This record gives sequence, structure tokens and C-alpha cells, in this order.
Amino acid sequence: MDHDATLDLDARAYALDRAHVFHSWSAQGALDPVVIAGGSGTRVWDHAGREYLDFSSQLVNVNIGHQHPAVVQAIVEQAQQLTTISPPTAHLVRGEAARRIAAVAPDGMDKVFFTNGGADAVENAIRMARLHTGRDKVLSRYRSYHGNTGAAIVATGDWRRVPNEFARGHVHFFGPYLYRSEFWAETPEQECERALQHLRRMIEVEGPASIAAVLLESIPGTAGVLVPPPGYLAGVREVCDQHGIVLILDEVMAGFGRTGDWFAHTAHGVVPDLITFAKGVNSGYVPVGGVIISDAIAATFDERVFPGGLTYSGHPLAMASIVASIDAMTAEGIVENAATIGRDVLGPALQDLAERHPSVGEVRGVGVFWAIELVADPQTRAPLPAAAMGTVKAELVKRGLLPFIVDNRIHAVPPCVVTRDDVAEAVTIYDEVLSLVDPSL
Amino acid sequence: MDHDATLDLDARAYALDRAHVFHSWSAQGALDPVVIAGGSGTRVWDHAGREYLDFSSQLVNVNIGHQHPAVVQAIVEQAQQLTTISPPTAHLVRGEAARRIAAVAPDGMDKVFFTNGGADAVENAIRMARLHTGRDKVLSRYRSYHGNTGAAIVATGDWRRVPNEFARGHVHFFGPYLYRSEFWAETPEQECERALQHLRRMIEVEGPASIAAVLLESIPGTAGVLVPPPGYLAGVREVCDQHGIVLILDEVMAGFGRTGDWFAHTAHGVVPDLITFAKGVNSGYVPVGGVIISDAIAATFDERVFPGGLTYSGHPLAMASIVASIDAMTAEGIVENAATIGRDVLGPALQDLAERHPSVGEVRGVGVFWAIELVADPQTRAPLPAAAMGTVKAELVKRGLLPFIVDNRIHAVPPCVVTRDDVAEAVTIYDEVLSLVDPSL
Repeated sequence: MDHDATLDLDARAYALDRAHVFHSWSAQGALDPVVIAGGSGTRVWDHAGREYLDFSSQLVNVNIGHQHPAVVQAIVEQAQQLTTISPPTAHLVRGEAARRIAAVAPDGMDKVFFTNGGADAVENAIRMARLHTGRDKVLSRYRSYHGNTGAAIVATGDWRRVPNEFARGHVHFFGPYLYRSEFWAETPEQECERALQHLRRMIEVEGPASIAAVLLESIPGTAGVLVPPPGYLAGVREVCDQHGIVLILDEVMAGFGRTGDWFAHTAHGVVPDLITFAKGVNSGYVPVGGVIISDAIAATFDERVFPGGLTYSGHPLAMASIVASIDAMTAEGIVENAATIGRDVLGPALQDLAERHPSVGEVRGVGVFWAIELVADPQTRAPLPAAAMGTVKAELVKRGLLPFIVDNRIHAVPPCVVTRDDVAEAVTIYDEVLSLVDPSL
Repeated sequence: MDHDATLDLDARAYALDRAHVFHSWSAQGALDPVVIAGGSGTRVWDHAGREYLDFSSQLVNVNIGHQHPAVVQAIVEQAQQLTTISPPTAHLVRGEAARRIAAVAPDGMDKVFFTNGGADAVENAIRMARLHTGRDKVLSRYRSYHGNTGAAIVATGDWRRVPNEFARGHVHFFGPYLYRSEFWAETPEQECERALQHLRRMIEVEGPASIAAVLLESIPGTAGVLVPPPGYLAGVREVCDQHGIVLILDEVMAGFGRTGDWFAHTAHGVVPDLITFAKGVNSGYVPVGGVIISDAIAATFDERVFPGGLTYSGHPLAMASIVASIDAMTAEGIVENAATIGRDVLGPALQDLAERHPSVGEVRGVGVFWAIELVADPQTRAPLPAAAMGTVKAELVKRGLLPFIVDNRIHAVPPCVVTRDDVAEAVTIYDEVLSLVDPSL
């Protein structure tokens, strides 16, 4: 445990990491982590000054960009005032943060329960839905991710669920994903209609009176930026209303600017009963998440004890960073920038890549929330194999771009402050690297 | 949502809280939260300057005291350098934090997995134990608290479990608690021996080969500061070894100075396989928790993927606060202070209260981790009713002491930096208030 103090800082960071840090979602033996020491806006760098263009937003959370000065300053000032205070107290900045979140949320959702991150936000939303309805089952979709704790992970719809099924009452259904349709559909309209029919059938056969909630990411994120076809979320809202089922929309990754709107569901014209959030609410500058609660569900707990809680709920540093972040995003038009860049620059550039590279099966997205789906064969749509994806990742990093890669996809998910020049730089790098894996046709 | 900007700050904090903040573990209608704006050491205060002596350490987390200047400064400096970076990277301060934790942990526990708090620390410890053993069941005790997410809450042994049983494979047993013995015991030796016999029987009847882990708070905290009798934890270690069961010790509340040692289990001469921590590791200045992992369990995941993770694992602000906190606690002898105060001042003063007040059934504890158990009748040991406990709480707050009250107990849990004068002040207040609820004999 006695490390050589003469090592340079990058080497020391690397050596300490390998000796003492146990990493998420990985076999520990094979790891080779990139060292990061600082950042600003869309850029991060190591101790030696090697710079990367961050088109990952880390884990799709740094919406406001790295080290926004107003948010840093708010954290500094709050740290000097009061770092921590317990949830049962009243704290001014906590109230100010909750007020700002309620102000950007739909009307009729005035209360916020704060958690440490997205997973426990989902945990508490499920808890509220079960107690509000007196029902047990939670329906969520395959191809989804809702967090890694015991209830949230079983609600998850990808491989990470399978070794973690520690909870009960979770039922999974298929959602719309036209490129790999589960419903033999050929148009967005058909995909939408058939996906809704499938959900209605699932609710019938599972028993509507046993179902507490439908839990959906407004746009499934890590699953592939699966933007739902027009009308799908409205159709889900309608079937939930018909059966008294709570609609929980998970906006942990999609919310707070990512799609060019405060919430991804806004563009789909629906209002959920509960919204879970984390990540973009303060760009992850301090760990935080939460649930925005409809007035009807909040009222359930006016006289009845809500049986949930956690030590760091409404943590002052997190609260100060939320206030500063929402204020800065508003004042600087950061959400609008994400919308404009997506519509005018990033979206068209990625479509252009798709047309020129046979390795690109589909690009899809909105705002600064895009997936480039890579295939070994454009006809069969067979995913590009893991080894080739490893090459893609290594070649992107080699060229100074930090990518977000899941399965056979590059997710193009820069901070919402990304500029036209940043996009041009990234697309040039994508272009070069895609050429390396294009199949010969 | 438009609040009167002319309200004074305490009133504004209160009004915003009531309008927008949804609180833990409460019916929302009846809340009347104390406003807190700042703090230092063992004191906190509101905007108007009304001061409280903090004998709660908030939720038993502010071990180093409020606003320790070195920890605040470390947060400020890290905020100015890099607030957030994703878990797959290597970050110098993360490595430094993990190294310091490994250094105070038992030999042979060199790796740390970081989480957002105690609940997800327990989640991940359970996950590691299940995958390491290939077994399913987790045994934990009644009268325990392990966090509020889906697996952790079902491992919990108090009322908060019952409305939250969303997970499987959890079995509860009784632990030692001589004052309210489940085993008809009359001495600590008898309580220890019988509690171990009960655990051995539980393991036999549940099937040793089906049991992944025994999960225990080294000293159950919220459950009543239930210091185990000498030999109990060593006996648990022995029965775990006999059957290849992982021993997880939850040190979320008891660890990092609270008992006058870095870990509560040290005084009991046992080494667990996994240690969960949060709270005292950085006094909650930034949300964080984690699991300290034995080399044998870490090796299980060298070639095999560990299927757990979270966005804010190893968050730079949290890491910087851990480094500064462990360094300051070491340099300033803060852990030793907790031991000395407990042995020489707080313990004897509480014993004296117990002798003079018939409302005190028992006091028990170690370091700055004590419970004063209140009874309506010293003979039957009937707990003091909730209404009287409400009086106790209100009268303590009225006299300027922030208490930590659970069921029929006052937990005397000040920061580890508490002084002799602080203790004298608190004990005088306890003394006055206990007189109000003493039964006439």
C-alpha cells in the first residue's frame, strides 16, 4: 500500500486505481482506465494536459458542461456555509431547489422527494405508486435501465437485470423500436399502434387491478436512444388512466436539457403522475436524484406515513448545485442550444454519416441525445461484433474523443453546451473511425 | 409558487419546505421542521442566530463536527478542479481515498467499491456475497436497519421493512439485547451463548448451503445502540467460517470514529469479509458510501464481470472530502477523543442519570454512541409511550439541544469532537427533561 511518491501524477492515479478501486460493471483484471484530472465545457484532460472532447457527457450526465463557473461557485459558497444537514430539518436552499424543479415540471406536480441518484429515485417512485394504488405489479419495458438497487434493477430490461432479480412483482413488456421491431411493423404508425396493442394485452392478461404502475423511460437511453413514435406515450397515458394505473416516467437520462427540452415527455404531449430525475438536474456535480410528485399522489401521504428515506435526502451541496444549474441553464439558453444543435447540426451530420457508411444501420435521436447503431451487414442488420466495437472505442479515444459506447452503438451525447465546431470535430473523428469498420459490400 | 420575497429567511425556508419538499418517514401534513442555516463543530443555528447543541450528529453522521475547515477546503478545491467524472475513469483523488480507507481497514481488505450512501453499499455487499458464494439467502437480525432500497430494506429488521418487502431470500433472526432478552437470559454471558445457539439453529433449519451471507450491524444503531456482549461477533464469525458463509458487517453508523475506534468490530476481535460504510467516512459532507472488500471476494471478480454500478460511484467531491476527513481525524486525534469522552465523561454521566431517574430503564453504549432507554415503569420495562416521547423531544429542542430520538429512546450521539463542556451542557438538559417524565414510584 506504499506507493512510490516519485511517480508522476497520471501514473500515480492509475496505480492507486488499480490497487484499491473496485469498478462498476466490469471484470477487474482487464481494466485499463483513462486518467482524468480536470475539465471545462466539452473538454476534459489528464495531469499531463492530454485533452479529450467529451461526447459522452461522462455517463450522459454533464448536461451543462464541465466546471460551469456559476455552479462551481454555488457549491463553494454552500460548502463554506453548511455542507450537510439532515432531511427532517427545513433548509432554505433545499426549498429553493424544489421550487425550481416544480417550476419546470408540469402543472399539478408541486412536491419533490430528493434521493442520492436515479436508482433510489425509481425505488421511491415505485414505493409511492404501490402505496397510492394498493396494488403490487410494476410493468416496465425490455430494453430499459432504471438503476441498480434491489427493486430498480428488477424493473430494468437489459442484461443487468438477470443476475440481480432480488425483487418481486415486476413484469416486462416490449416497447416500440422500429429498426428491430418486435411486432413485424414497417412504419412508425404501425409500430406505435402494435406496441400499444401489445401493452393493452399485457395489462389484460396480467390483470389491470393488480398493476400499480407502468414505469418507462420517456426515451430509453442506455438501451439505444429509442425515441418513441408519435402517439405512443399518449397511448400509454390513456391505457393507464383507463385502469387507474400510475404512470412513472423515468427522466434520469433524458431530462433537464438532453432532448432540447426540460423533460423528454413534453414533446409527446403527456403528463405523468411521477417523474424520476438525476444526472442533468445538476449535471452530477454533486450526487443527487429525486421524484417529482403529482398533487394527487402527494396527498396520499398527507395523513399517512411515507415509509421511505435516506440520510442525504436534500443534501445542501446538491441543492445549491441544482439552484445554480437550473438558473444558469435558463439564463444562458442551454436547453435551447441543445434543441438547435440537434435539429440543425448534429442530427443532419449523423444522418450524413449514415448515408455514407454501410456500417451505420440507423441513427436516431433528438437534441444532444443520439445513437449511431453499427451493423456488420446492412441487409440482415446483424450487430457489429464486440471485437469491432472494441476497435471503434480504442480508435475514438486515440483521436481524442471520449465516447459513450453500449453494445453495437456509439451514443453521441455531448454536453448541451456543445458548439457547431465541437460537432464538426467529433463528426470528423466518427467518420474516420467508421471507415475502419465499414463492411465491404 | 410565488413566495413573498419580503419574508425573513427563516420564514421563507419554512414556507418553501412546506410547499415543495416531500419528507422521509413522515406523514406530510403534520410536519413542523426546525430551520437550520449554518453550523460549526457541535453547534448549528438558524438564520436569526438561534443556536442548537447537536447531540444527534444529524442522522448520526457528522462525526468530525460541522464545517471542519480542512474538509470544507478540500471540497472547495476539488470543486474548482473537477466536480464530476465517471466511474470507468481513473481519478487520483479516488485512488487516494480508497487507499486511506484500505489503510484503516483490517489487513487483507485492499479494495473499495464506492456508492452514494449506506443503502446501496449494502445492496452491493449482498450482490458480492451472492455471486461469490453462488448462494441466495441473506440472514440478518431483527432490530436492524440496512437502508431503504429494494434489497437492503428487506434485510432491515424494524418496522420500515414491512411495507417494503420487494426482494427475496431474506431471513431474520434474533440478536443479543439483554435488557429485552429474546432468550430468557439474565447475564451477558448467557445472552451471548443463547443468541449464538439461536443463530446456529437458524442456519441449520434454513440450510447452510443455501446461505450466502450473514449481514449484521457491528452495533445495531437506530435499533437502539445494541452493543453485542463479548464473544458474540467472534461466535458469528466462527459459525460463518464453518459453513462458508460471507460475513458482512454494516459499519454505516458505527464506523469511522463513532465508537472510539475506526470500526466498531475491532474491539470485538473479528475480521469480516465485507464492510459497508457511509456517514462517518466523510461526515456526510458529500453523499457517499461504499464496500470494503476482502482480497478473496475481490479476486472472484478479477475475470468475472461484477454486475453492479452507479453513475456517481467514486465522485470527486466525495473522494476529496474522505481524504481530508480521514487525514484530519488522524492528525487531530478525533477518534481517540470519542473513546476518551465516552469512557471518562459521557458514559459515566449517563450512568449517573440512569441511577437518579426512574424513567431511565437502561443506558448503554461506547464512545459517542449511546442510547438512553426510557420506560413508563422500571419493573415491567414498559416503554415510555409515544406522547411522552413527543414531550421529551419538544422540551429538549426548546432548551437548545438537537436530539436523536427513536421509539422510546434518546440516542446521545454527538460529533466525535464533542468536549467535556458540551457533555455537561447536554446532560444538564437531559436531566431537566427526564424529570418531566419520571414516573412517581
